[in-house]
Amino acid sequence: MPAPRGALMIGQSGGPTAVINASLVGAVEAARQHDCITGVYGMRHGIEGVLKEDLVDLGGQSAQTLAGLKQTPSAALGSCRRKLSDADYQRILAVLEAHGVRYFCYIGGNDSADTSYRVGKLAAESGYELYAVGIPKTVDNDLGFTDHCPGYGSVARFNAMATRDAGRDTEAIGIVDNVKIIETMGRNAGWITASTVLGKETETDPPHVVLLPEVAFRPEPFLAAVKHTFERLGYCLVTVCEGLRGEDGREVVASQRALDTDQFGHRQLGGVADFLVDLVASNLGIKARFDKPGTIQRMFMLAASPVDVEEAYLVGATAVHQAVAGVTGQMVTLVRESNHPYRCTTGLAPLQEVANAERPLPPEFIGPDGMSLTAQYLEYARPLIGGPLPPYARLEPLKVPPCT
Amino acid sequence: MPAPRGALMIGQSGGPTAVINASLVGAVEAARQHDCITGVYGMRHGIEGVLKEDLVDLGGQSAQTLAGLKQTPSAALGSCRRKLSDADYQRILAVLEAHGVRYFCYIGGNDSADTSYRVGKLAAESGYELYAVGIPKTVDNDLGFTDHCPGYGSVARFNAMATRDAGRDTEAIGIVDNVKIIETMGRNAGWITASTVLGKETETDPPHVVLLPEVAFRPEPFLAAVKHTFERLGYCLVTVCEGLRGEDGREVVASQRALDTDQFGHRQLGGVADFLVDLVASNLGIKARFDKPGTIQRMFMLAASPVDVEEAYLVGATAVHQAVAGVTGQMVTLVRESNHPYRCTTGLAPLQEVANAERPLPPEFIGPDGMSLTAQYLEYARPLIGGPLPPYARLEPLKVPPCT
Repeated sequence: MPAPRGALMIGQSGGPTAVINASLVGAVEAARQHDCITGVYGMRHGIEGVLKEDLVDLGGQSAQTLAGLKQTPSAALGSCRRKLSDADYQRILAVLEAHGVRYFCYIGGNDSADTSYRVGKLAAESGYELYAVGIPKTVDNDLGFTDHCPGYGSVARFNAMATRDAGRDTEAIGIVDNVKIIETMGRNAGWITASTVLGKETETDPPHVVLLPEVAFRPEPFLAAVKHTFERLGYCLVTVCEGLRGEDGREVVASQRALDTDQFGHRQLGGVADFLVDLVASNLGIKARFDKPGTIQRMFMLAASPVDVEEAYLVGATAVHQAVAGVTGQMVTLVRESNHPYRCTTGLAPLQEVANAERPLPPEFIGPDGMSLTAQYLEYARPLIGGPLPPYARLEPLKVPPCT
Repeated sequence: MPAPRGALMIGQSGGPTAVINASLVGAVEAARQHDCITGVYGMRHGIEGVLKEDLVDLGGQSAQTLAGLKQTPSAALGSCRRKLSDADYQRILAVLEAHGVRYFCYIGGNDSADTSYRVGKLAAESGYELYAVGIPKTVDNDLGFTDHCPGYGSVARFNAMATRDAGRDTEAIGIVDNVKIIETMGRNAGWITASTVLGKETETDPPHVVLLPEVAFRPEPFLAAVKHTFERLGYCLVTVCEGLRGEDGREVVASQRALDTDQFGHRQLGGVADFLVDLVASNLGIKARFDKPGTIQRMFMLAASPVDVEEAYLVGATAVHQAVAGVTGQMVTLVRESNHPYRCTTGLAPLQEVANAERPLPPEFIGPDGMSLTAQYLEYARPLIGGPLPPYARLEPLKVPPCT
């Protein structure tokens, strides 16, 4: 059966990343290779743009615009986070039909996979020929079925650099600000926090303590580890996930404001670094301060991983090729073929299963102390940031003998 | 009178910067050009290293180490922030004499200028021939007598990039997180916060509201500006100085913990972004979040300004050349010769006067609303970040007409 003639509808959803536009450009450029694709429509602010028919002609964008967008962070179409009703899905299908859409690609995480799955299912039930293929995206790296998620390599590269750089700062002025806490993103999984170790060259390099949401936080071993490092090195750098949980399974610090709950019930986190600063000062009498790069970490284009940019482009393009080849109800995945040299290809996974799976850091990636990462994690993550960080120097330890 | 034969003692003080090592390398490489300099000794952790005779042989460092250090952030020698007693100064002079030191260079801000001044004065009073020359360094950019301070161009480049990038994030997901607050460093002066505007290309680009310590904070006009921007653009990005002050002249938020006061009486700031998030949520009912890059902003080497690196090197080298030429009690300054093309040379200013001056943002750099920067500021600051930021793209506004 030949691929039907029709338009491609594409959108971006959830938290933006440094490379989500690379996926968009990959899809648009792939669409141009298929005569059966009669137009490419971009949803303004994700699925909201379909509901409102607020659509951009992506097929008409110049080559220069597309080349520029590949190197521009955040979601050029605008993003959204919206829970859809049954009536919304009916409306979506009506809009797709009215615009002759036969191909539907949605760039996002679990929630977006769910949306794509339901759109595809409703179309099938209605007898409307539609090919819905998901494009993975999340800095959280917590989607199942894919080796890793586009967006992760870049947030990881930023955090590896930021931790190395801020660590040098605290090392230099250790006697003034002895302990530094860096709070990273990560709602339920510690992948982003884990990436702060990727700039480590020696065992004494920061971070010295890594607090992951997969490991229940206990103040005593944490304080003992900080004290031990401080006594050994004269300073200590801690990285912590914003979603850190206590032994009761609840977030250590969670805002109570009603405004801080979005339509998916995710709470706006934050404040865990402040909590740790207090804990260290009041229990150890050591001065601490915190850095919280926040959304800068997922957006800082200068630090984007070149591997991540190319893979984001690849999954975008592949989604369109697969849809035209008759695939539907699937998300494109990344499949690692080899680590030395690093090689990755694409695969497919059912959208419905992707929507319902969340992948925390596996136990074999977490050190036995629960506050470090293993060599297996390094082997997994290092290729994703696109090579080692630019080298830094240290003074040669040439001591001048005392005279007085 | 020929320059006396003797050693050069050099140290780094105060908060580290991305380019403070470039100044160190400049000084060491300049020293190698002078036969009268018999050795180069580095103070470990600033003046503490002199008191403890904890000294590094800088003259013996390899060319490779020096080249690497020029591109390595933070203070390779270690830094300090210490108030010195009269006895300390006597001890310093004794150590300098014992090591045959005739040249003394200290890289830092006001406090370091004061130290250099007092060391030079005590030597003169004691009849000990010593040439003490200060090397300027501070991300705060608040030293007098110099057009700008090494370290500023790099923190400014980072903040310009971070604001542009994080702004794209909030713009894309405006309907989820409508207001973003970015808290920058800056104890008493708004130079760092001002630099967040340097990535602006159009009037609608972020930041939309800039809160400077030079302008007393008033909640009403602030909230009105946020509301206005939000209604116009669908999101709003605010940048705020950690040292923001209210109409009573006191910091809007200041930690009360005794541990948070260092030996110079500076308080550890922070928390102002959190305060603004609350203010916006409770008064406007708009969800806000904050990013606080903290020390990452002054250290992130990848974003360092190439102009800043070269100027930091220049002032380090110049200090040594001047000391050998018989200058003492002076700090090297940067003197702007032209803006188009940008050209800067060096000058000198008395250390005693530098020590006692703090330079806030001048009124002509602050917009009439007190929440923006003027074209004069842009003209001043743009050359310092080493050229425009890499260009980003936007989708061309090609609307698809509705069909339903």
